[in-house]
Amino acid sequence: MIIIGELINGTRKRIKRAIAERDAEYLANLAARQAEAGADFIDVNPGTVGEAEVKDMVWLVEIVQQATDKPLCLDTPNADAMRAGLEAYQGSATPMINSLSLENERLATMLPLVKDAGVNLVALALSDEGMPSQAGQREEAAQRLIDTLIEQAELPAERLFVDPIICPLCTQPDVLGQITQAIAAIREYNPQGHITSGLSNISFGLPNRKLLNRVAVSLFMQAGMDSAVLDPLDRQMMAQICTTEALLGQDEFCMNYLAAFREGKLEA
Amino acid sequence: MIIIGELINGTRKRIKRAIAERDAEYLANLAARQAEAGADFIDVNPGTVGEAEVKDMVWLVEIVQQATDKPLCLDTPNADAMRAGLEAYQGSATPMINSLSLENERLATMLPLVKDAGVNLVALALSDEGMPSQAGQREEAAQRLIDTLIEQAELPAERLFVDPIICPLCTQPDVLGQITQAIAAIREYNPQGHITSGLSNISFGLPNRKLLNRVAVSLFMQAGMDSAVLDPLDRQMMAQICTTEALLGQDEFCMNYLAAFREGKLEA
Repeated sequence: MIIIGELINGTRKRIKRAIAERDAEYLANLAARQAEAGADFIDVNPGTVGEAEVKDMVWLVEIVQQATDKPLCLDTPNADAMRAGLEAYQGSATPMINSLSLENERLATMLPLVKDAGVNLVALALSDEGMPSQAGQREEAAQRLIDTLIEQAELPAERLFVDPIICPLCTQPDVLGQITQAIAAIREYNPQGHITSGLSNISFGLPNRKLLNRVAVSLFMQAGMDSAVLDPLDRQMMAQICTTEALLGQDEFCMNYLAAFREGKLEA
Repeated sequence: MIIIGELINGTRKRIKRAIAERDAEYLANLAARQAEAGADFIDVNPGTVGEAEVKDMVWLVEIVQQATDKPLCLDTPNADAMRAGLEAYQGSATPMINSLSLENERLATMLPLVKDAGVNLVALALSDEGMPSQAGQREEAAQRLIDTLIEQAELPAERLFVDPIICPLCTQPDVLGQITQAIAAIREYNPQGHITSGLSNISFGLPNRKLLNRVAVSLFMQAGMDSAVLDPLDRQMMAQICTTEALLGQDEFCMNYLAAFREGKLEA
């Protein structure tokens, strides 16, 4: 699994304060802890707007890349902030843009950046029609998006992370089946690509969300998801992913599972 | 999920002693606790041999059915003990025979009992060739078994619980894929039937077995397994099953999940 560590997100109260106060130590520490816990990308989302977001993104990129060698995942709908963040990024590993979709405005502003920057990209299976609610909508949007990105932005297939858009189970009782089907179709359409998601949406409105999220990650992995945006400091979640990889035959001789056990990472 | 509670098994040291000492209170309590925790069948396995097993089985059946109204799952390779257990069984719910397979001797001795008794049956996808180790072997054995049971024993399809034989991950790295494929084939061949398994075999030889078993149950459920032989007093396992049912859309409006939450059953 390719883990995108989600914790540095300015829409969270504690992070908003740390950004406003330029608390570099707190944020650098959070970046380093996520990398240590197994994040492959560190998401940075200023969560502000306009010119402030441009400045906040540049500052965040500078802080975080001093704390870890992991590539960053620049997370903003603001194309100016995205461009400034990419310019500030000095790492050798290819960064990630999070995200664009088929929504007209977002596509028009982000597409040139994707083409110029040579990045990984999270592409949401969303059109201007809004959230998918029926079987077939996700894969239809994903296929149009894949065509657009590979043709118009010359994005290599293996740098594309399609997000099939996980909706809450409490409003879409058949969401798991819909997404399983979408994942299979997207995998078939773009075999070299990746499939990711912010999976905690699944449990919105229900109690004991972490348990639901953990079980969901196993089911999505079995369906073919190979990346997720999540909290890598959630030890039970990371243990669940490690265990699922072993069971799915993605961990030769269970080496990672055994190493995680020896390091005490499988305990709750 | 149809849960077969596995705890009353004379091959376990504590149970062996309770049977030898005719400690009815201990065993009755264990039966009642499994029923309370969600077992749909209570497995009883004397774990002894010969004439002793016949007597032990009759005694166990009498004790356990005084403790619970749940149907029993009579678990022995000894046809005499099985027959005596079925005769001692007074419950109104249809009991279960655990198990027969294509192995010649076992099939010959158990088949008449299945035909006469009007029971549920666990049928192991095993032939005289031994444990399945390659893709395709499980479904091939299962199909021959289904044909035999429906034709020769006139077993109604919905009373048949096929066990695809879960082997240890550490010796069969692709066991999950093999079983997933077998489950799909068996479901297609016998749509009204059930698929069960003693799933703790998956984790044999690896550390932190309960975590592996829990994750495995979710993956097998997604593949189509609808029953399991397990310890219903394992709260984390039961929470995992409840959560998986909700995610798979098998729990309308998440009613069972919400009830389990209110009853504190989702906490570790």
